[in-house]
Amino acid sequence: MKTWERLIASFKRFPGIGPKQAERMALHLLRAPSAEADDLLASIKEARAKIRTCSCCCNFTDREVCAICSDPGRDQEVLCVVEDPQDVAAIERSRSYRGLYHVLHGRLSPLDGMGPERLRVRELADRVRDPSGAVREVVLATDADTEGEATALYLAQLLRRPELKMSRIAQGVPLGGDLDYIDERTLGQAMSCRREL
Amino acid sequence: MKTWERLIASFKRFPGIGPKQAERMALHLLRAPSAEADDLLASIKEARAKIRTCSCCCNFTDREVCAICSDPGRDQEVLCVVEDPQDVAAIERSRSYRGLYHVLHGRLSPLDGMGPERLRVRELADRVRDPSGAVREVVLATDADTEGEATALYLAQLLRRPELKMSRIAQGVPLGGDLDYIDERTLGQAMSCRREL
Repeated sequence: MKTWERLIASFKRFPGIGPKQAERMALHLLRAPSAEADDLLASIKEARAKIRTCSCCCNFTDREVCAICSDPGRDQEVLCVVEDPQDVAAIERSRSYRGLYHVLHGRLSPLDGMGPERLRVRELADRVRDPSGAVREVVLATDADTEGEATALYLAQLLRRPELKMSRIAQGVPLGGDLDYIDERTLGQAMSCRREL
Repeated sequence: MKTWERLIASFKRFPGIGPKQAERMALHLLRAPSAEADDLLASIKEARAKIRTCSCCCNFTDREVCAICSDPGRDQEVLCVVEDPQDVAAIERSRSYRGLYHVLHGRLSPLDGMGPERLRVRELADRVRDPSGAVREVVLATDADTEGEATALYLAQLLRRPELKMSRIAQGVPLGGDLDYIDERTLGQAMSCRREL
């Protein structure tokens, strides 16, 4: 049945959705009440039409300048660089940061053809170097894996200036982590970065 | 951002999609080329408009009578009863069956309020009891879990007639299964249903 297979193929294009999950989703959609299907269609259309990247931090927003960038209560001197919009949401949930963000929309990954030109690196450099800008510190909060580390190192070299403070989010044992179950590299990192009490 | 949250909420309604996966999907959709987003919208609309249940076997189809029911080459005397459309696809892939199907669209589950009246049981009974019908055997191919077993037992009692052969798909050790790793109930079933060689 072409219609059915086309629907499944559409779902399979999403990352993390395999053939079985695509089938489950197609089935759910066919059995769902019309209101639910219409709501899905409307929310997709609305998102595609309204959501764009903030002209300042490159995060997704439905305004010209996003809510965080246009909030005068945020610390304008600190810039936290993340890979993806979800990372902004995660840091906001932690309530541990009151500065601004910059979203790269990816990370360096030469094997996948992701070079700096495909990330929002130029926008970041412009922001940091802007002579009228207030940026005093850049917090590199890319992921703690190989590609995230490489991206952080690359940005640190690119942006380095004597008057600019550059930092990397701490790596170590996660809170509530049982030492027995933590891999040796994380444990090694936690040991070598130990803090004096 | 309301638009973004609405899109994520729409994806979270699908079974098996948690908050993280919904975020990944929303992000993918926003970054996808227009052609891909349009194709998703079109395939959902097409499926909702065209797909209905076959008037004979209750499987999803885009015709009045589905391709399997209208195929004269299939054995009209055997009816395989399954829970969901995916089960038909799985059995077809096994190339082990040439009869017809009947899709219940669920299984008995009193705790979830799924009684026989919410399944396509009446249609099945009508098909099996039809005096002009050719059904000689009913293969009960509901899942091998508690609710699937209960559904099979219920249907066996409901449909039982002296001239009707009733069977249940075999349960036992899956092919390639390592006995060490197979749960004791499956192993017990495989032992008590052992075949003479």
